[in-house]
Amino acid sequence: MYLTDRKVAVMGAAGAIGSNIVQDLLATGTARRIAMYDPFGPGLEGAALEILHCAFPNAEISWTTDPAEALRGAAYVISSGGAPRKEGMTREDLLLGNCQIARGLGEAIREHAPTAEYVIVIFNPADITGLTTLVYSGLRPEYVTTLAALDSTRLRAELAAAFAVMPDEVTGCATYGGHGEKMAVFADGIGVSGIPLRDLLQGATVNDRTLSQADWTALQERVRNGGSQIIKLRGRSSYQSPAHQSVAMLRARIECADYPWPCGAYFATGAYANVMMAAPVSFDVFGMAAREPVGNAIDMAALAESYQHLAALRNEVIQAGVLPPVERWPEYNPHL
Amino acid sequence: MYLTDRKVAVMGAAGAIGSNIVQDLLATGTARRIAMYDPFGPGLEGAALEILHCAFPNAEISWTTDPAEALRGAAYVISSGGAPRKEGMTREDLLLGNCQIARGLGEAIREHAPTAEYVIVIFNPADITGLTTLVYSGLRPEYVTTLAALDSTRLRAELAAAFAVMPDEVTGCATYGGHGEKMAVFADGIGVSGIPLRDLLQGATVNDRTLSQADWTALQERVRNGGSQIIKLRGRSSYQSPAHQSVAMLRARIECADYPWPCGAYFATGAYANVMMAAPVSFDVFGMAAREPVGNAIDMAALAESYQHLAALRNEVIQAGVLPPVERWPEYNPHL
Repeated sequence: MYLTDRKVAVMGAAGAIGSNIVQDLLATGTARRIAMYDPFGPGLEGAALEILHCAFPNAEISWTTDPAEALRGAAYVISSGGAPRKEGMTREDLLLGNCQIARGLGEAIREHAPTAEYVIVIFNPADITGLTTLVYSGLRPEYVTTLAALDSTRLRAELAAAFAVMPDEVTGCATYGGHGEKMAVFADGIGVSGIPLRDLLQGATVNDRTLSQADWTALQERVRNGGSQIIKLRGRSSYQSPAHQSVAMLRARIECADYPWPCGAYFATGAYANVMMAAPVSFDVFGMAAREPVGNAIDMAALAESYQHLAALRNEVIQAGVLPPVERWPEYNPHL
Repeated sequence: MYLTDRKVAVMGAAGAIGSNIVQDLLATGTARRIAMYDPFGPGLEGAALEILHCAFPNAEISWTTDPAEALRGAAYVISSGGAPRKEGMTREDLLLGNCQIARGLGEAIREHAPTAEYVIVIFNPADITGLTTLVYSGLRPEYVTTLAALDSTRLRAELAAAFAVMPDEVTGCATYGGHGEKMAVFADGIGVSGIPLRDLLQGATVNDRTLSQADWTALQERVRNGGSQIIKLRGRSSYQSPAHQSVAMLRARIECADYPWPCGAYFATGAYANVMMAAPVSFDVFGMAAREPVGNAIDMAALAESYQHLAALRNEVIQAGVLPPVERWPEYNPHL
């Protein structure tokens, strides 16, 4: 009835994202043994009681304000436990504070959940918090990731709206690199009802609708600001979509299944070395395997710029002493 | 992949409960064609975008601030569209305002969704708003219900905590009658790890734990205040559990399956005539069939009192002119 009986630790479980993750893990039949952690005790208890009141069959729900207890023996960890982004803040504003939280998470995983096989970090700026968690956790890079899907699902939703088609009619949507304003919104590989985007940009139509280069540039910009748009509309940052896609990632990891969206991945070598960034992945028994993104010249230039931005953010965190210098990472994590 | 391709209208879809219902309908594989209605346009758009960004396969999501458009052709309707309860308010404080909303819902269903086959009302006081919706909708009573499960799932959670067992070890939990403070928390039929509650109340133990009559009375009281407890802990009224159990009810309706919790049901005759109240139900192709609750003498006395309370609330709404007098209901709904 559930994909796994193994323990899932949900960190930040009193929050809107965390409590939604717990519900979604159960509703999708993904996991039934869930440890909820949050530093805010009353909210945590309230969220846990709500989950109990949902009455999911055979669920084993525990909750604690002690992260060690939540993590102990966990096979999987999903953490939304950062400070949330407020209207007007960029993700980068949150950088150092949330990287400190990520460092604590990594250290706690190293101590209490060293056999964890998948850790999903979803607090912003997720590329850097995920990287920080990886360095301090001591886990293999194939086991540590960040949620990176939403920029791509937003791209798909924007294109579906632009051509008045069902979202499933739009294929090949991906944004790579950083999750922040410098994300690379790829054009290469996109199709709408089977028509390549490059043809649409040269006048081909779907539903009698066209997309000019200016439309596409504006659409890419809306994707980059997709998170802010949700805050403006709902008065709060998105919580349902990050929760659901985190659970979808975990399902793919457990089932060694296809996952159609980018995930945050660490590259040890190559053009994108020593950052964590959105990349195409596949899952097998060894964990998550990432490939370097491939696109047209414009896409690749945007990705190179996004990588530079991520490397600069990483260096800022190293400068602040929250991450060790790159050459010392193997002392903290032998898999790097 | 989904239980039904038929249209589900979710009313109040910008709210915490409504937007969670949409997600849960999709996450549980229940329904894929969902019309979201809410009078608050920006919040509705934000909630709809979040659902699009979840990227559920094959989902057809629409959203509108026009209730007629949302309801048109809907086979199923779930409405959380009342004013929410705030800390310190009783459910009854909401009575007349939310009954006016329920009247509008019923009239809109009659006009735009007369072939709907299941309508779930979950805004408080749900017994009366559900009854009001039924009267004005013109639908058969087997097709109109209220969410009534949470008092029973809270009872189960309380007993599981009292005896330190898994919730699934506690069986037969039910509260009947009204959903308000006058609910009848039944003792008859409850078992904990196979030991009847009546034996536990006379000294039998589970996990070396006992339950005195005073403990049981206090526990019943906590169940009656379970909703307020969530507000105190989370700073907001419950939203995950009402959403998930509403979806579970709809699943049972679609599959003609067992549903283990009470549902709000209308009784045309008998001891509980002319109200809607929590009762045991089963589902078949004709809809939801309710039975009169059966319990011990104390349970039945509590239920009689709860019924009197519901009848008084109903009369108050009739007095205020929001519901017609009982004898005129057939003019509004030929199935009553």
